[in-house]
Order: sequence, then structure tokens, then C-alpha cells
Amino acid sequence: MPSPDQAGDPVRDLTAVVPAGGSGTRLWPLSRSSSPKFLHDLTGSGRSLLQGTVDRLEPLVGDRVMVVTGTRHADAVRAQLPDLRPENLLVEPSPRDSMPAIGLAAAVLERRDPGAVLGSFAADHVIGEPDVFRERVRQAVHAARQGLLVTLGITPTSPATGFGYVRVGGELAVEDAPDVRHVEAFVEKPDAELAAEYLASGRYLWNAGMFVVRAGTLLDLLEQQQPRMVQTLREVAADPSSIAERWDSLTRISIDHAVAEPAAAAGHVAVVPAPFTWDDVGDFASLASLLPESAGRPGLHVLGPEDLVLAEGSTGVVAPRAGRTVVTLGMQDVVVVDTPDALLVTTARHCQDVKGLVETLRRTGREELT
Amino acid sequence: MPSPDQAGDPVRDLTAVVPAGGSGTRLWPLSRSSSPKFLHDLTGSGRSLLQGTVDRLEPLVGDRVMVVTGTRHADAVRAQLPDLRPENLLVEPSPRDSMPAIGLAAAVLERRDPGAVLGSFAADHVIGEPDVFRERVRQAVHAARQGLLVTLGITPTSPATGFGYVRVGGELAVEDAPDVRHVEAFVEKPDAELAAEYLASGRYLWNAGMFVVRAGTLLDLLEQQQPRMVQTLREVAADPSSIAERWDSLTRISIDHAVAEPAAAAGHVAVVPAPFTWDDVGDFASLASLLPESAGRPGLHVLGPEDLVLAEGSTGVVAPRAGRTVVTLGMQDVVVVDTPDALLVTTARHCQDVKGLVETLRRTGREELT
Repeated sequence: MPSPDQAGDPVRDLTAVVPAGGSGTRLWPLSRSSSPKFLHDLTGSGRSLLQGTVDRLEPLVGDRVMVVTGTRHADAVRAQLPDLRPENLLVEPSPRDSMPAIGLAAAVLERRDPGAVLGSFAADHVIGEPDVFRERVRQAVHAARQGLLVTLGITPTSPATGFGYVRVGGELAVEDAPDVRHVEAFVEKPDAELAAEYLASGRYLWNAGMFVVRAGTLLDLLEQQQPRMVQTLREVAADPSSIAERWDSLTRISIDHAVAEPAAAAGHVAVVPAPFTWDDVGDFASLASLLPESAGRPGLHVLGPEDLVLAEGSTGVVAPRAGRTVVTLGMQDVVVVDTPDALLVTTARHCQDVKGLVETLRRTGREELT
Repeated sequence: MPSPDQAGDPVRDLTAVVPAGGSGTRLWPLSRSSSPKFLHDLTGSGRSLLQGTVDRLEPLVGDRVMVVTGTRHADAVRAQLPDLRPENLLVEPSPRDSMPAIGLAAAVLERRDPGAVLGSFAADHVIGEPDVFRERVRQAVHAARQGLLVTLGITPTSPATGFGYVRVGGELAVEDAPDVRHVEAFVEKPDAELAAEYLASGRYLWNAGMFVVRAGTLLDLLEQQQPRMVQTLREVAADPSSIAERWDSLTRISIDHAVAEPAAAAGHVAVVPAPFTWDDVGDFASLASLLPESAGRPGLHVLGPEDLVLAEGSTGVVAPRAGRTVVTLGMQDVVVVDTPDALLVTTARHCQDVKGLVETLRRTGREELT
């Protein structure tokens, strides 16, 4: 029989923390530094990735959602999330990677409730089965209450080389969390051969950067590695007006490097295997796989008004985002992204190279387009 | 020693007639029915094809240039050719193919000067060596004064299947026209095998639709085939205000079918072989061959501002005509035409199919884009 909090009510001690950062340059010119991918509807759902993330969490946490974002994007986040409580929008004066962002959220939550649990979920990921997601987060909360740092590890469906992995250890006995396991280690992005071994072994999960942990536990683990950072974060939480002068002194570091890897080595990390489809919408090939096929047009995916696209003998992704008619003729696996000030034409095979293209644009005096 | 009129002065009895029609649908979306290809600069020269045609003729005819165009384009022609004498702009109420257009010019010229010679040259062709062109037209004028219908036949450089051909006969003795030959026949566009035979034989030239003939000769030849048409054309020339009511009664027919083919069969046609490069800018592959290569970017041709194009690992034609930055990545022989209301992405291999695409646009309610 499910325990009460699995039946659908919010988890009372959990706050969702949504770091909304990253520029998504491999999705240029859809994603720009002034308007990164989390602000865009990239699935044709009518909701931005950020809004989709909050929608997915709402049955679990109600309005206990905290967003951490940069100064440039704070207004856009407020506009997209009108129900976000003002005290739950943390604005970073400059990007310092994920540890300071999530650490600040932890310090703020710890002051509000010393037993608070936080679940950190990126603003620009897409999850196929939100019910399964929420059920797994509930298991993670049970484990987090035991003082563990808990991650959700995605069951891999391919030997991906674009993600880090989590090596799964033995069972952990946690009530109401039947699937939770020890984590032996976090490992870096593998090469193709190693990725194939990981997949075949059945012992590795994708590290999707989702963490569920008591705010106090996270700060304690961080304190062992970066005592000055924890002190600064607690000072900022106590006096938010001091953020401008203190923030830039913080080390740029990811939560993986700062806390997850050393804590795993010390045996403090658990994982809940997560058998839902997950995508970080990393490039246009990924985008194509998330979009429905255009009606009557096999292999064609349109992000925008379908009637703006005439695709004769063509497959791929076409994003008509400038109100103009886009016509493709005899193009296979094409990527056409039409925006008011910039147009990209490439193929799925080259979509990883879009990042380098954006660097070229910056280097050649076209920074305003990036 | 060259005769005086080969030294550079205008040929006093010659008027250039420039039929400015045709929609150039294989160059969509550059060329539109509202703005056909002759109105566009398609070579990066800074002059439209129409202006380039007139520029090329000016040393030969001075201001004796007559343009025949449709109602929709008359204003654009006047704007592009401010020096065109108003009485030398003939405006067709509806398109009736080339014979009525050139025939009307002949009837108008005949009234002005019974001995007038006309040279008809399409508004949307590109010629590489204008000096050679003019020298060959001078030879054609000498032959035309003898009462012949004279065409310029382009020396073929490939077994093209997109043009009709002229089969060359024996020599003709015409003073100051050493290269003039009899025409045995005009033949239709051949298939590939036949085109290869034509090329190998050395007896065939491309029919570029250029004719030099006395106005009276042309009307006499036409009268043998279409006496009613000649009567109507002479009535319209006598009373230009009657064009509105008379024009639509004229048969739609090309000058080739109406006059050139029967006259050749009767031995009245001559040809001056024309050893200059010639292109009817029929499609984007042709356009690419006419544009210079982008500096430092082998295989890339830009029609528009070079600095709007970033082409990483790409070859082909990019036409940035909307002021936006166009980025191509890893595209070979690509054709990207960016206009304010429509974008085309295809490859050189498919450029013949653009015509069908335009028909699809019309059929699917997007006529305003064509």
C-alpha cells in the first residue's frame, strides 16, 4: 500500500530548486545569450522548458519552487512564472556554475526551516513521464531525510558520450524508497568504447544533474571541501543585500565536482534509478526527437506554425520563427532555423558544431547575434 | 581594315528591341511574377539584367532602344531606365508570347522608317564579351539589310538539353559579314543523346532567341503565316490607343514558331555564329556560374552583402536579400535564398524543380508569394 505522500499530495518538507542558467549555444539561433533555451518552447507544447519544469514539479511541491537565475534573465523568469513568490527568485549577479547557485538556495532554505529538503532540477530538461519522475523524487526525498545526498540516475538507452555517468553500488534499506542504491562513483563523460561497456554492464546510469538533499546536509558536505564558500553563502542568505559585493568572490564550480564526487567517495551518496525518458535538449538532433512528426510529412519536424513550411522531398527540423514561409526542396536531415535577425542552415550530422559557429560569430564581430 | 561602323559608332538604321517578360520561376523567391528576373541584379554587377542588356546595346544603337513589357512592370522599367524615350516603351495589356511583342515593335518601327532594322534581345540574358557581341550584331545587320531574317547562334560549350538549336548550312556572301551562314533548320530542345551528337557534329549552335531583321521583312514573313496578326499589329501601331481592345485577340505564339521555323524552311534565315559566353540565367546552378567566387571561400557564391554570410565548410549559392545574417554549416552545393517574406533552401541538384515548387505554392493558396 502506498504511503500517504505517494498518493499525490505535495511533499511538505521539499522545495524544488530550479537553476535557470546556461546559454544553449548548440541551439543557436533559437537560443541566445540574451534569451537562453530554458525560456523557449522547444517541444511545441505551448510552454517554455522553464514553465514545463515548474509544471512537472507543482504536484510535488505546490508553490515551494525556488528559481536561481542571472540578472539578465530575472525579468523574463518573472514574466513566465507569474505565480513564483518574489522571495523564491534568487538572482545571481554573475554566473558561478551550479554549486554557488544551489548552495545559495540551500542556505536560504536552511534559514527558513533547518530540516528543509531541496530537490534541484535544471530548467531546460524534458521528461517524458512526469508521474514516474515524481514517484522517483518521492523515493529520493525519503533517502534524503536519512542524511544522504541523493541523485536520480537515468536508465541509459544508448551508449551516450555526451553525459557523465553514475556507477551504482549495493542496496540501501530506506523505508518507502525500494529502489534506492548506493553510488560508488560519479564518472566523467566516456569515449564511445567505454560508453558501450557502461551500457552493457547494466551498472551505470546517466548523471542528469538532479539532486535531492536536506539543505543542511548539502551545506555540511560542501563545508568539508569549501568552508569559505559555505560561510559566504550563509552570510548572503542572512543579508541578501550583500550579494552584490560578495558573489564574485565565490569559486566557479559545479555541484558534481564540489560535493557529489567527494561525497560519493566517502559513501554519502545514493541514487534512485529513473526509468523515464529524459532529454537535455542539447542540440538540434535532440530537438528533432522531441518534436512530433508533421502531419502527413514523414521525417519532418516543425517547430512553429506548420503552414509556414513547404518541405518537398525533405526531412529534418524546420523552425519558422520569423513569420516567413520556409521552403525546402530535396533536403535530407536538414536543420533550418529562421529567426528575425539570423538564419541557420545545416544538417543533423553537423549539429554538434553549432557551438563552434557561435564562437566564430563572436570572434568576427557579430556578438549581437549570439 | 574595319568598315566605319565596326569602329564603334552606332548603326544608324538599327533599333534594339528588348522584350522584357517571363517570370523566371526557377529563380523563385528572387524572381516573382510581380518582380521577374530581368528587374534584378543577378550577377552582382550593380545593374539589373534589363539595365545590363541596355548597357550592352548602347554603343551600337545609342538611345534607339525599345522595350516591350507587361502592364505590371511598366513602372519598374521606367524607373530602371530613366533615359528610355516614352514612345519607345510598348506596354502589352496581356502576355501573348514573343511574336506579338516583337511584331508590334516591328510595326511601330516600320511606320517611323520603312527601312528600319530591328535587333531583338531578351532582357534577362547575360553575355560575357560585349565587344564580340556587338561585332556579331553588326554582321547580322549587314545580312538583315539583304532581306534576311538573321539570328545569332551561340557556339555550344556543352551538350545542353535546355535550349533549342540552329542547324548551320553553307556560306552566304554578304559584304562586311564574313561569318554569316545559311540556317537549314531550327530544332527543338534535344534529349541528352541527341545533344551530344549536335555538339560533336560542329554543325549546331544554341538558339538564344536573338533576331536581327528589317521591320518590313519580319512583317512580310509573318504575313505569310498569320495575316490577321500583321493587320492587327499595324492597326495598333497606327492608333496606339486601340491596343486595349485589340491585343487580347492576338494568337499566343513565339517568334520561333510563327516566323523563324517556316522562314528557315523557305531559305530566308541566316545565322552569325556567336563565340561569346552567353547565359539565360535559367536556374540557380546557372546563377552560381555567373557569380564570382567569394573571397577566400572556394566554391561559395554570394549574391548580396558578403558580410551577411558565414559559410562554415559550405559551398553553393547564398543570397542574403533580407538584411539578415545567413549561416550555413557543412552544406555542399547548397542554395539558400533569403528574402523578406520567403526563404528557399535546396541544392544545385534540385534547382530545376523550383519551377514545380512555385506551382505548388500557387495551388496551396500561397500565390501572393509567387
